[in-house]
Amino acid sequence: MSVIIDFSIFPVGKGESVSDYVSRAVKIIKESRLPFKPGPMGTAIEGEWDEVMAVVNRCFEALRKDCNRVYMTMKVDYRKGESGRMEGKVKTVERKS
Amino acid sequence: MSVIIDFSIFPVGKGESVSDYVSRAVKIIKESRLPFKPGPMGTAIEGEWDEVMAVVNRCFEALRKDCNRVYMTMKVDYRKGESGRMEGKVKTVERKS
Amino acid sequence: MSVIIDFSIFPVGKGESVSDYVSRAVKIIKESRLPFKPGPMGTAIEGEWDEVMAVVNRCFEALRKDCNRVYMTMKVDYRKGESGRMEGKVKTVERKS
Amino acid sequence: MSVIIDFSIFPVGKGESVSDYVSRAVKIIKESRLPFKPGPMGTAIEGEWDEVMAVVNRCFEALRKDCNRVYMTMKVDYRKGESGRMEGKVKTVERKS
Repeated sequence: MSVIIDFSIFPVGKGESVSDYVSRAVKIIKESRLPFKPGPMGTAIEGEWDEVMAVVNRCFEALRKDCNRVYMTMKVDYRKGESGRMEGKVKTVERKS
Repeated sequence: MSVIIDFSIFPVGKGESVSDYVSRAVKIIKESRLPFKPGPMGTAIEGEWDEVMAVVNRCFEALRKDCNRVYMTMKVDYRKGESGRMEGKVKTVERKS
Repeated sequence: MSVIIDFSIFPVGKGESVSDYVSRAVKIIKESRLPFKPGPMGTAIEGEWDEVMAVVNRCFEALRKDCNRVYMTMKVDYRKGESGRMEGKVKTVERKS
Repeated sequence: MSVIIDFSIFPVGKGESVSDYVSRAVKIIKESRLPFKPGPMGTAIEGEWDEVMAVVNRCFEALRKDCNRVYMTMKVDYRKGESGRMEGKVKTVERKS
């Protein structure tokens, strides 16, 4: 029942470097205890839909408290009856490519 | 306090044409009474964060009930203290371009 | 053979309001003479893959010339043997929803 | 002058499992010799804009030759005067979070 999301969030109008804000989100993702995988363009998170959305919500609240403008992108891949897919997806493609 | 999102959702594994499923989501968006703007690659929705996320949640549930795999993309633009931005953004750019 | 893309581009580090830069891109899209549809979160463009990518390329060059950091998102939907889909997709979903 | 992109591509209408097609794209990315980082929701690639777009183009052609419908998403982060950022971005956020 799990979903995997790719998630990125950053402020617009806080200068060219946004890593302090991105780090705030990644800290929240870590604290969630959900499996995650950091990447250069976003963080992948796996879990039940409600769990994952709760984390996204916390990240958004953490940035909007002191950022006038926040930009976020998300991709979601849901597949019925499967969990622990995050590692599996990468391995399957690695093996086949 | 409002956000504008661009939202698209469709099943993978239900054939090449997915408009029946997309329409199901658009119906839910309409019923929400939030301002929205349909487009060829997604639907823009404006509202408070919680309202908009509730609609996204309903769309997801409506597809996953009979789709084994669902793909979703979302972009979010939050800007403090502004609402009714959906029309304004398009008009500003139209005027300047 | 046509594709439809949803395209958004803006600078990071040029302040909270980015409409001057977005307008620069929209001007380039208009000049391309390709069918397009502006939206609050991005612009949809339809054409042959190479034509559309050439426009994306010009938009990118137009921003990077005076922006130290540029962010861009793109969704692409290709469907064989069909063109003039941009209006059709919206209408089909409108009729069904 | 380099960009980092997050890139995902898959067919719609070829069934629920799309890893054969995704692997085809990842093989092309590997052959390009550009630095890349596979993830569960997409692959990050770093290089000059033209180099990276050439790879995206090859992936698209490789899928459309036998897929009637292809979906693609891309995020681009350009930052002036910096290269080798792919590792750096992840490490900076790791250190701060």
